[in-house]
Amino acid sequence: MKRIGIVTSGADAPGMNAAIRAVVRTAIPLGFEVLGIKRGYAGLLNNEMQRLNLRLVGSVIHLGGTILGTERCKEFMTDEGVRKAAENLEVNAIDALIVIGGDGSFRGALDLSGVCDIPIIGIPATIDNDVAGTDTTIGFDTAVNTALSAIDKIRDTAMSHGRVFVVEVMGKKRGFLALEVGLTAGAEKIIVPEEKRDLGMVCDRLKESHNKGKRYSIIVIAEGVGKTQEVVDVIRTTCGYEVRLTSLGYIQRGGSPTARSRLLASLFGSEAVKMVLNDERNKMVGLKKDRIESRSLKYVCESEKPLDLNLLRLAEELAI
Amino acid sequence: MKRIGIVTSGADAPGMNAAIRAVVRTAIPLGFEVLGIKRGYAGLLNNEMQRLNLRLVGSVIHLGGTILGTERCKEFMTDEGVRKAAENLEVNAIDALIVIGGDGSFRGALDLSGVCDIPIIGIPATIDNDVAGTDTTIGFDTAVNTALSAIDKIRDTAMSHGRVFVVEVMGKKRGFLALEVGLTAGAEKIIVPEEKRDLGMVCDRLKESHNKGKRYSIIVIAEGVGKTQEVVDVIRTTCGYEVRLTSLGYIQRGGSPTARSRLLASLFGSEAVKMVLNDERNKMVGLKKDRIESRSLKYVCESEKPLDLNLLRLAEELAI
Amino acid sequence: MKRIGIVTSGADAPGMNAAIRAVVRTAIPLGFEVLGIKRGYAGLLNNEMQRLNLRLVGSVIHLGGTILGTERCKEFMTDEGVRKAAENLEVNAIDALIVIGGDGSFRGALDLSGVCDIPIIGIPATIDNDVAGTDTTIGFDTAVNTALSAIDKIRDTAMSHGRVFVVEVMGKKRGFLALEVGLTAGAEKIIVPEEKRDLGMVCDRLKESHNKGKRYSIIVIAEGVGKTQEVVDVIRTTCGYEVRLTSLGYIQRGGSPTARSRLLASLFGSEAVKMVLNDERNKMVGLKKDRIESRSLKYVCESEKPLDLNLLRLAEELAI
Amino acid sequence: MKRIGIVTSGADAPGMNAAIRAVVRTAIPLGFEVLGIKRGYAGLLNNEMQRLNLRLVGSVIHLGGTILGTERCKEFMTDEGVRKAAENLEVNAIDALIVIGGDGSFRGALDLSGVCDIPIIGIPATIDNDVAGTDTTIGFDTAVNTALSAIDKIRDTAMSHGRVFVVEVMGKKRGFLALEVGLTAGAEKIIVPEEKRDLGMVCDRLKESHNKGKRYSIIVIAEGVGKTQEVVDVIRTTCGYEVRLTSLGYIQRGGSPTARSRLLASLFGSEAVKMVLNDERNKMVGLKKDRIESRSLKYVCESEKPLDLNLLRLAEELAI
Repeated sequence: MKRIGIVTSGADAPGMNAAIRAVVRTAIPLGFEVLGIKRGYAGLLNNEMQRLNLRLVGSVIHLGGTILGTERCKEFMTDEGVRKAAENLEVNAIDALIVIGGDGSFRGALDLSGVCDIPIIGIPATIDNDVAGTDTTIGFDTAVNTALSAIDKIRDTAMSHGRVFVVEVMGKKRGFLALEVGLTAGAEKIIVPEEKRDLGMVCDRLKESHNKGKRYSIIVIAEGVGKTQEVVDVIRTTCGYEVRLTSLGYIQRGGSPTARSRLLASLFGSEAVKMVLNDERNKMVGLKKDRIESRSLKYVCESEKPLDLNLLRLAEELAI
Repeated sequence: MKRIGIVTSGADAPGMNAAIRAVVRTAIPLGFEVLGIKRGYAGLLNNEMQRLNLRLVGSVIHLGGTILGTERCKEFMTDEGVRKAAENLEVNAIDALIVIGGDGSFRGALDLSGVCDIPIIGIPATIDNDVAGTDTTIGFDTAVNTALSAIDKIRDTAMSHGRVFVVEVMGKKRGFLALEVGLTAGAEKIIVPEEKRDLGMVCDRLKESHNKGKRYSIIVIAEGVGKTQEVVDVIRTTCGYEVRLTSLGYIQRGGSPTARSRLLASLFGSEAVKMVLNDERNKMVGLKKDRIESRSLKYVCESEKPLDLNLLRLAEELAI
Repeated sequence: MKRIGIVTSGADAPGMNAAIRAVVRTAIPLGFEVLGIKRGYAGLLNNEMQRLNLRLVGSVIHLGGTILGTERCKEFMTDEGVRKAAENLEVNAIDALIVIGGDGSFRGALDLSGVCDIPIIGIPATIDNDVAGTDTTIGFDTAVNTALSAIDKIRDTAMSHGRVFVVEVMGKKRGFLALEVGLTAGAEKIIVPEEKRDLGMVCDRLKESHNKGKRYSIIVIAEGVGKTQEVVDVIRTTCGYEVRLTSLGYIQRGGSPTARSRLLASLFGSEAVKMVLNDERNKMVGLKKDRIESRSLKYVCESEKPLDLNLLRLAEELAI
Repeated sequence: MKRIGIVTSGADAPGMNAAIRAVVRTAIPLGFEVLGIKRGYAGLLNNEMQRLNLRLVGSVIHLGGTILGTERCKEFMTDEGVRKAAENLEVNAIDALIVIGGDGSFRGALDLSGVCDIPIIGIPATIDNDVAGTDTTIGFDTAVNTALSAIDKIRDTAMSHGRVFVVEVMGKKRGFLALEVGLTAGAEKIIVPEEKRDLGMVCDRLKESHNKGKRYSIIVIAEGVGKTQEVVDVIRTTCGYEVRLTSLGYIQRGGSPTARSRLLASLFGSEAVKMVLNDERNKMVGLKKDRIESRSLKYVCESEKPLDLNLLRLAEELAI
């Protein structure tokens, strides 16, 4: 009998519970025992763990957040913290660790792998989709749809008042969320950190649209760009339009996962256990061209996933 | 054949279209002609009007915003603007005016009633519910539910991380939206402009809850309170908890109206036309104790609707 | 220290959990102990109970269904079953019983009150709204909005194809749900058990609408009418239109409660405990003209709440 | 100047409007004129067409259904009908035809290609996903999520009552929808036409789950299986559980498209125009392994897309 530890780390993402369920329900029939580690790496440092069984992961597939809890853990960012974590893995007789989280969590996992010799498998779950080695992450599709529904509501007001709305979406330092939300919301302009911001061009485009008869416009901006207020001010001053700013905020992180987030979580969770079974080490399960593939945690942590700028062009071509 | 003008004014609210539909479909079979005035009072000043028929208000009952458009209109706030509006009512042979909007719109209607002698009937539609003479307004129930769904998503993250979330909701200078959202979201504390803010007490309550084993808390604050960031800072400093702020913003103004907002719009729209038929003047249709009642626009503009502080107490009693 | 038993009975309704929360959190600070009875009256007969505390009702205000469970219980419908229930109330030292459910549950409560002398208080919770003594019930507003959202989706297909859709909604033997859903969905025709069905008139109306240029129609029919398929067949045969039938089914019973259902649950739950405190007996808390009022269970069980046929007329007047 | 005709045909699917928008806004800047054909092939036979411009496809990206309308057209299934369609294409000087629809629509398109020599390009849009040559279709993701949300509501009642729910979903003759919905809903069992139905095994599985402590179960069955009621009856008789049946019906066809459906529609619509530009003929644009690819309409009409039975196994492994 081998024992798998499972931890959700970093920011929560919709679908983490579906992934926990998939891990537990794949592992137990294969003869593993599963230990749920609470509150992220903080729980690993404090030995807060609970044995999970088939029933404890019942009726959670549809729930946002994580039933294991998660937390920022500064101590784990120190060498001492990592060593203590490794000790606790041994103390608790954990033979393999599955980490569900984003790139910060995987950097922690990589550090941990340096001081302990059990297999560590990562499952990418973040609404930001900013993880190399996988085309998409658990929670991303949910966040895109949540932001999209929000903008569909804002559209009512934009249309009624004939206004420009600037909507700030999450995504940390990257523009994945902004790009997909902006394209599918029909946004006039999408501003992402991956492209040089040219506010003059944004204003020209708005004026052109206005002249062509567009009564309202929506601009989606990634939080990673920074200075969203400045964008609003420049448009207001340069174009003379009524401009309103809304930052969608934390609603993007919660909510019941979409089918796609649940499906991905099921595939990844099941695969992660099989990787443990095959004694694969320090890898992250991912999706490449619609196929399950794995990459080393080292690759994941050292690479940067490119943003598809062609999609950005398409979005703008269609928003005329 | 008499001609009714209809205008949506001020901020848009979900259900305005259902009200327009109700007015048109009640009025036309009674022999009226209905003229839709575009872009609020701005369209009245610029003679932007369109004759409405039964089909033009088909398939709009479920749409947020207003198909007539609305806009802030500074010119209408001047004596000259009001006079011009009165002239345009006459030029367009409008025999009665139905104004769908909030208290600002009704103040404008009252001014207008001073310089023209056609009947003016108000239909209260605002997500803020800050209109005297009616227990509730078109759009309020929708906004409450939109904010509530947003907080239900935020709850996932709050629970997962064990954090305090401060959520700012709309409501202009009043706490109606915050109160109903806070109570139904199970918020630990609701901060409204109608009550003296006592941050010390807020912090005491949070600490007490925390000691009782509550892992997360949600605080709802009305935008009318101002200084939301200060609240966040004081809690963070005083309690030492992780605190996050989200301002729900414009999503609260849009979206498909709830059943209650559509029902209210249907009742009010139909009644407003009957009031015109009965030559009632300068009144607003409203709902008091679940019955349709009307009050003079003067009363509406000069009165302040009290907030039910008992509900505020109930909310706090149940959030222990 | 007195002990209150609480049971959810009959069909589940969204908001039952918010009511349980309100009861527990009002009762405990007043010095009561609260015992949750599982699986409806079946749990009372089988002594399946659990002491509830403040934390156990945390994070449930937004959940549909009932955390206590509910079940049909044939045994309770016999004299012997009722006697056994009374015995179990005594065995478990329950000093008062709060029953959350619909009219069937209240009939059971009334029977029980005949053989035991503890106060029994009813809280009306059913999506059907078919309970006398209260204008509305916990869960009704949620079901109306769920059905309405469903019809808004069906509208897309109806519009695209230019079809007639017949939508069957729940409501048991009554038309409350159909009426409110139909009115707010803009249904061409609403068929309820409270009115004689005149299919000829329905067909005439559809043909008239069609001739007036309406490209699609929605007909809402209450399940209590029966023979929905017949309605479909007659329209198809008589009018020659493409007609589609959808029965919304069980989605109407679940889902997160709306603000209004949660508010009602909070008010009713709190009031029910105060009624126990005041030693009121065998009553149901209710809402009349927007005020909390109580009526005897006897009145509730023997009376029939009228359907507002004026609303039915309004719905049809506005759907032209 | 070339003229492209565009038609939506067969059953409507969410995202068709986003596809129309993408076609129009890609084509016009390239110098094409776009003629919208109304009511599917019926409108082609009746010369019901409207020139589309950039503004007419504004504010439709989020709307379900199709602004062009669609209809079954028996006449088009005859040789004469097809010839008349070809004539009308010529009469209206249409140089290329873009058909948005499912496999029935593409069979029609293939027939049409036999008697006219303009390029015909198909865009796959159907909630059933039963189209060869593409991994997924416009509307499929939306329908999956709609059905999933419905089942999440039903789960509340299933959990509260401890019942078995059998939920019938759409999918015509195939199990794509049932599979993805069932897996992501955590259904105990998914019954699809692609697998021999073994009700004995279904009952064994339910009993086993029940014995393991599962209090409720959800079974998803594709409409293509037929005899859903029989499944319900057998379970009820064999297992002795309370079983409820819900057929989700037409709600699965409507609603605002998800991000994924809108993204697919944007990609496909844009690509279809480029295929016209490159004089490609009688092909369908599709997505294979996350890349845009095209296949001949002949291949699409003659091939059958396999259902991924591994996913079916995964679903069952995770629902223990």
